[in-house]
Amino acid sequence: MTITRNAKAHWEGSLFEGKGQVKLESSGLGSFDVTWASRAEDPNGRTSPEELLAAAHSSCFNMQLSNVLVKAGNEAQSIDTSAEVDFKPGTGITEIRLTVRAKVEGLDNDAFVTAAEAAKTGCPVSQALRATPIKLDAALAE
Amino acid sequence: MTITRNAKAHWEGSLFEGKGQVKLESSGLGSFDVTWASRAEDPNGRTSPEELLAAAHSSCFNMQLSNVLVKAGNEAQSIDTSAEVDFKPGTGITEIRLTVRAKVEGLDNDAFVTAAEAAKTGCPVSQALRATPIKLDAALAE
Repeated sequence: MTITRNAKAHWEGSLFEGKGQVKLESSGLGSFDVTWASRAEDPNGRTSPEELLAAAHSSCFNMQLSNVLVKAGNEAQSIDTSAEVDFKPGTGITEIRLTVRAKVEGLDNDAFVTAAEAAKTGCPVSQALRATPIKLDAALAE
Repeated sequence: MTITRNAKAHWEGSLFEGKGQVKLESSGLGSFDVTWASRAEDPNGRTSPEELLAAAHSSCFNMQLSNVLVKAGNEAQSIDTSAEVDFKPGTGITEIRLTVRAKVEGLDNDAFVTAAEAAKTGCPVSQALRATPIKLDAALAE
């Protein structure tokens, strides 16, 4: 079974002077403004392709990690992941960094790091992005 | 110069029974619920990694296309792009389809399709996703 999710984007004008919106179509959660300035300068309350990619990647990684942990017999109390996406205008997306801190009872830090590495490799968004460098900083929460 | 954009994701519990949120951190635009059901069954007002990826890709493609057009001497009145991301549980993200319709004065449909193909190849999110099949349906708006 294949599931399809959809978003729509609108743009008017040139890259640098124009403006657009992007709409989360499948969920109906909203439409968000996007401009070149919000991507390459300051966000100023607007989104960007890289912020949305970071959201896709961090949420996918968490799901994958929750499942890797359960399969090894440990359900996570909480998993918190930050994704940072680097964008260099003229070059592209140069690196993604995932930083995860989690509360998992009955698991030592080394075993957690191994699980997190497996989730980084296996998560569908990581796989879709496998042509892009992805780094992981994983540890149990203090 | 490198720009970094950031999102954060939280998860509690197992993949199938657990739940989470994802937050657009750089823009501060909000935090959205995400569950396995919203990803693999019905969205029910919640987002998913694939919907967010579709949002990243469609907005990036539009920016790239606006610039390809301007460089060839044609500023778009409007560009509307839908991105559909296919997800097959157990397999991963199998295909992304971009459908673009645009209003561009002084450009015939063939020249527009050529510009859209260049934008598909060149856009930073397409490049980051180059390990994933991406299809494009491009035409000037009726």
